[in-house]
Parts: sequence; structure tokens; C-alpha cells
Amino acid sequence: LDSKLPTTAVSVFSQMSALAEQHQALNLSQGFPNYPASTELIALVNRYMEKGFNQYAPMPGCMPLREQIAHKVSDVYGLAVDPETEITITAGGTQALFTTIATLVRPGDEVIIFEPAYDSYRPSVELFGGKVVPIRLLAPDFSIDWQQVRAAISDKTKLIMLNNPSNPAAKVLSPDDLKELEEILRDSSIFLLSDEVYEHIVFDGRQHQSALSYPALRERSFVIASFGKLLHTTGWKLGYAIAPPELSREFRKVHQFNVFSVNTPMQMAIATYLKEERRYRDLPAFFQEKRDFLTEGLRGSRFAVQPSEGTYFLLLSYQGISDLSEMEFAHHLTINHGVATVPIAAFYSEPCEQKLLRLCFAKDTDSLAKAIDLLQKV
Amino acid sequence: LDSKLPTTAVSVFSQMSALAEQHQALNLSQGFPNYPASTELIALVNRYMEKGFNQYAPMPGCMPLREQIAHKVSDVYGLAVDPETEITITAGGTQALFTTIATLVRPGDEVIIFEPAYDSYRPSVELFGGKVVPIRLLAPDFSIDWQQVRAAISDKTKLIMLNNPSNPAAKVLSPDDLKELEEILRDSSIFLLSDEVYEHIVFDGRQHQSALSYPALRERSFVIASFGKLLHTTGWKLGYAIAPPELSREFRKVHQFNVFSVNTPMQMAIATYLKEERRYRDLPAFFQEKRDFLTEGLRGSRFAVQPSEGTYFLLLSYQGISDLSEMEFAHHLTINHGVATVPIAAFYSEPCEQKLLRLCFAKDTDSLAKAIDLLQKV
Ligand SMILES: CSCCC(=O)C(=O)O
Ligand SMILES: CSCCC(=O)C(=O)O
Repeated sequence: LDSKLPTTAVSVFSQMSALAEQHQALNLSQGFPNYPASTELIALVNRYMEKGFNQYAPMPGCMPLREQIAHKVSDVYGLAVDPETEITITAGGTQALFTTIATLVRPGDEVIIFEPAYDSYRPSVELFGGKVVPIRLLAPDFSIDWQQVRAAISDKTKLIMLNNPSNPAAKVLSPDDLKELEEILRDSSIFLLSDEVYEHIVFDGRQHQSALSYPALRERSFVIASFGKLLHTTGWKLGYAIAPPELSREFRKVHQFNVFSVNTPMQMAIATYLKEERRYRDLPAFFQEKRDFLTEGLRGSRFAVQPSEGTYFLLLSYQGISDLSEMEFAHHLTINHGVATVPIAAFYSEPCEQKLLRLCFAKDTDSLAKAIDLLQKV
Repeated sequence: LDSKLPTTAVSVFSQMSALAEQHQALNLSQGFPNYPASTELIALVNRYMEKGFNQYAPMPGCMPLREQIAHKVSDVYGLAVDPETEITITAGGTQALFTTIATLVRPGDEVIIFEPAYDSYRPSVELFGGKVVPIRLLAPDFSIDWQQVRAAISDKTKLIMLNNPSNPAAKVLSPDDLKELEEILRDSSIFLLSDEVYEHIVFDGRQHQSALSYPALRERSFVIASFGKLLHTTGWKLGYAIAPPELSREFRKVHQFNVFSVNTPMQMAIATYLKEERRYRDLPAFFQEKRDFLTEGLRGSRFAVQPSEGTYFLLLSYQGISDLSEMEFAHHLTINHGVATVPIAAFYSEPCEQKLLRLCFAKDTDSLAKAIDLLQKV
């Protein structure tokens, strides 16, 4: 079999999680919570299964959930989106990304991505014959050089993929960034994939800037979100895409053949659970406390913590501690110090060594305390 | 937006289900059970959620479930498959189909399908630039003319898609059929997608012939199965693909970027639930009783029932009742007689009128009795 993805290996997340297990290290690599999910939410799933919600959901998703998403968008961003024509429920954020790319990209199309980038972006584009045009975020604060974006655009550019808040950079874009992008895209035929799976996890009073809030972006955007991140249930695999009716129509054609529909009882449970607005309003404070606990705890260690503006990740510099490459040092830290992380070199398509490791702080206090203890000893 | 799937409309299943709802008709169109799922299975999902199985499953699926599938394959077919390298859990059978096609098909490749065919086959192939080469099953019993298959093969043929037992034809292939296919494929570089989502629903003492049982097929096959059909939970969206290690490796690359992993607590629950072999062994008798009840009940009506060898569908001929096209008659039957069905013309890419409607008999006895009553009055 002649591979369509010849360079794809086991993902760095699976790799580091396996290494963590093998060496019984604390796993701060792959991004997932290690504390219990809400018992109320679990009870709701149980109730909907018992009530008989176990057969195919409507192809675009259960209407109560789509309506609840529209309510959330209105509550958080003050915007109206139409559940009937603009929202599609997917099997997680990753699937919404893949389906968007499948909907848009044809052989020869160019897709601009920002690196460090989530690992599925490039191969998903390449699977459809697209060509990735990577732009590096600027050191040390991972900001975007918009001049570079202008220069990277050609008449083959089909799509720009933006991740905001960004994993692994933990960077939150400003209103000025989105206005720049509006100016660039306004009279173009370029689409925007705005991966906003960490939309509710922003810190220090920042406001997440959704592409939905910028008219010249909204009309060309697929905005992607994730219930796994919102509800601490990454293993339920539920997310959604918001796009204008014409774009949603094409998205749904692919969705119909990719998966047809997604988990019915969990959709219904989430719809009911989200009726209380605190479910998403409380998230920044919840994660900021964890971020601060870990950041404070690492004071006086030999690592330098980079400020995390959003997501449940932060970056740690080991500059001055070791000359090992990021991958080597991440292995060393897992095997000899009992803490698994992700080298951010893994998020670049060309070699890029910055002596930075990514840590996931979506963990219970005991785990974070243990991480502090172990890292202080390095 | 220049559509990549310009001819795709709302699926006939969604269309007929919507019409059924609108006219409060009995919905025998879309294939799904209308009786409760097992309370034990639901309790297991609840237990695994409460135990904390709510985060990412391993990318290829939870090991207990993959092991249980290997046990089932061994129990039913007397064959060994390796859970580590040959089984991947997907978000339903449809997604396993799509991922297989994504793994194999490149622009210009030809894919042979048999019509009537499940509606996702053609557009999924076309989305990857493949060309569908349809072969019609022979009237009146929907058998395969293997000479036609030989004639349809070219040096561009990448894949043959087989559905056995077949939806909507309700046909079960014989050992001779599979041996013919072995001869055809033995020295070729053609792959086989064997869609066996109804593997456990075969009647009158028939034995399902899995592609896994035929060595020259197995080495080139992606065999696809569905827990929705097995467990009467089409809305949970869980299925799997079995393929040799080299093929599974490529399948998993696409799977990783399409969805990464699938629902964790439900995978764990199904693994435990399937420990009892009666869960799948009892299925033929369970559905045969429903098939027979409906078939008997329609004796003396103006419809002719075609024998259903497998799946939870049967075909009804309205020859001599009306000159309307299948689509028109299906609408008429829904609106004026209160029974929604699917015209099998919808499963052909070129016009084909045989005056046949598909009925789903995965329904409780009351619904089937009501269907009999309504159809007897036509
Ligand atoms: C799907 S595994 C990766 C999880 C994640 O989002 C991350 O660790 O970046
Ligand atoms: C995914 S909706 C179609 C359900 C089904 O398998 C059928 O009705 O054929």
C-alpha cells in the first residue's frame, strides 16, 4: 500500500502518554483533565439513555443542543447565530477541523497555518492534496507578524487556519490582531478556519476574540469549538462548527458521509447541562487558579515559566539547565524526573529548537503539587 | 464556495424521516430500532462514566474492547485477529467506511460498487477524486454477476466495495460468491472494503461469510462492523474496522487526524457487555421473528414481500398497485396511508424503477402490527 501520509508517525501525545505510563511518570503531556467530570452531567447522560435517546441524532445535531449553543454565543459574544442553518455538531473539535478541510481543500490549494501548530493541521490538508504554507509565530511571545501573512498569500490560497487561544503557545489574540486579519481577508476569496476550542479558557480578565465577532471574518469562517475542553470530558468526543448557511451546507455534506451524526444521549445531556450559564462562565477562574498554583510553585526552580494567557497549557524553558534537544530533554524529564511533557519542537514542520516544553495544568491539586515537587528537584 | 459535492442533497433517510414526522406516519424508512436499548448496557455506561472513564481513549480504541472484538471474531468465525495491530474503533460504521476510502483513494482511482448501494459510498469516493464504477445487482434476487465484475476491472481499479449482508437488497452472499471474488483479486493489487455492519443479522440458518474467512480477501480487506446494529443503539455511533497490520497502520493515520479517538465510557461498557456471547448469538432469532411477523402479516395484502435473507430490512413490491414512481409512491404511502418507507431507486446512481420499497422491521411488535394493519388497507 502506497501511503497517502508517508511521514505521519505516532502522535507526540500518544508517544509521551505511553512513555509516562511505562515509567509511571506524572503525565502532563497530552491535554486532558485528570479530575472527575461533573456528576450532574453524568446523571443527565444516564437519564437520556434511560429515556430512550439511543438512536441516530438528526444529521446536523440534536436541536436542543444547537439551540443551547446559540444561546451561549448570544450570552458570551452578544451575537445571533441560527441553530437551524449555522451550527453542526461533530465528533469532537478534531473532526470539525478535518471536515472543514475536507469541505474546502482541493489538490493544489494553499493553506496558511501558524507554527507551532496543532499536529493534525498539516496532514489533514495534505490528505486532500493541499499545500501547507507555514508561518512562524514570533519569538519570544508568539505574536503574529501580519506583514508575513500578507506576503504568504497567493492566488492559490484557499484557507487560513487560526488557533485562538493557541495550543501550544498559550497565546490569546488581541482585537487588533483580528482587525488586521479582517483587513487582509475583506476582499479576498480566502476562507478562515478559526479553531477556538479553548474559547472559554482565557486569563487575567482577557476577552476571547471570536472570529464570529468580526463581520468580515464571520462571513468566511468555520468557527470550531469543543465540549471536551468546556466540560472536562475529552473522551466523549463532542464538538461543533459554526459557519454561515452556505458554508454550513457544504460542511454538512461532508459530515453526512464522514460520520452522519454524533452521540445522541450525550448531546441531549449537554444541552440540558449548559442551561446554567455558570458552566462556561466559571471556567476562566477555575483554570486560572491551576495556572497560578503551578506558576507560583515553580518560582525558585531552575525553569522559567512563560506567561500563559489562555488554554490549559503553559510553556517551561529549560534554557541553562541542559543542552539536550527538546525531545531528548522531554524523555529525560519523564524517565529520570517522573514528569511527562511535550517538546514544542513537535509542533513545527521544520526543525525549531527553543528549549521549551509544554505542560498541561488541567490536573487536580495533588498532581500539580507533585509536579512542582518533582520539577523543583531538577 | 465552489462545492466539492455539487449533487449531494439531503439524504433519503433524513428526508423520509422528516416526512414521517410531519404526517405522523409510522417511520419504517430510516434504519433504526424503536424499542429500548438494554438496561444492563446503559447501566454499564453509567458505571464507567462514574468510575472516571471520561478522557481520551487510546487512538486505536480501548484495549478491552479491541480484545473483546478479537474474542467475538474467534468465537463466530474461528479466526485470530490481533487487537494490537488489526482492530481500530471508529465513530460508527459510516466513519470506518469514510476513513477507509480516505486511506486508499487518490484522484483518478476507480472504485467498483454494487447497486443498489448505501448512499455514502459514491460521494465519499468522489470527495477524494475517485471515480465510481457501479455494477447493478441482477434482478430479481440481487445476485452478483461475477463476469461483470471481471469486465469492470481496469488498471485504475483501486478498491471494490462490498456490502454483505446488503442494505437495501437484504441479500446474503454465499461461499461461492466469496470464492469467486478471491479468484478475481488473488493476484491483483486491488483492495476490498467489506461492509459487514449487518454480520450478525442473517436468517434461516444462513452463515454470514466474512471476508476475514477467505485468505486471499483477508490480506487486502478492510472489514467494517457496527455496534449500533449489534446493540440496538444506532445513536451511540460506535463501530470498527479490521484490517491487516500494514493496512491498519495507514487507516489509523487518517483516523488520528479525522477524529483521533472515540467515546471512552461507551467503548468500555460495550467491552464488558459483550463478554456474554448471547449478546450477538441471539440476534438472528430476535430479528427473524420480527421479519416473519411482518411477512406473515402482509399475506393477503396487495403487496408482494421479497424474501429477506439478512439485515433488518425487507423489500416490498407494489407492482400492480400503482404506476407511480418509487419516490412518488413512497410519499403517497407516507402521507395517505401513514407508513414511511424508502424507495430503493434512491440507492442507484442512474434511474432505476423496480416498484420496490424498503421497510425497516427493527421495530417493536405494536409498530409492526400497526404497519400490517395500515398496509393491508392499501
Ligand atoms: C487528541 S490528543 C491531543 C490532546 C490535545 O489537544 C493536546 O494535547 O494538544
Ligand atoms: C445513517 S441514516 C441511515 C440508516 C441506515 O443505515 C439505513 O437506513 O440504511
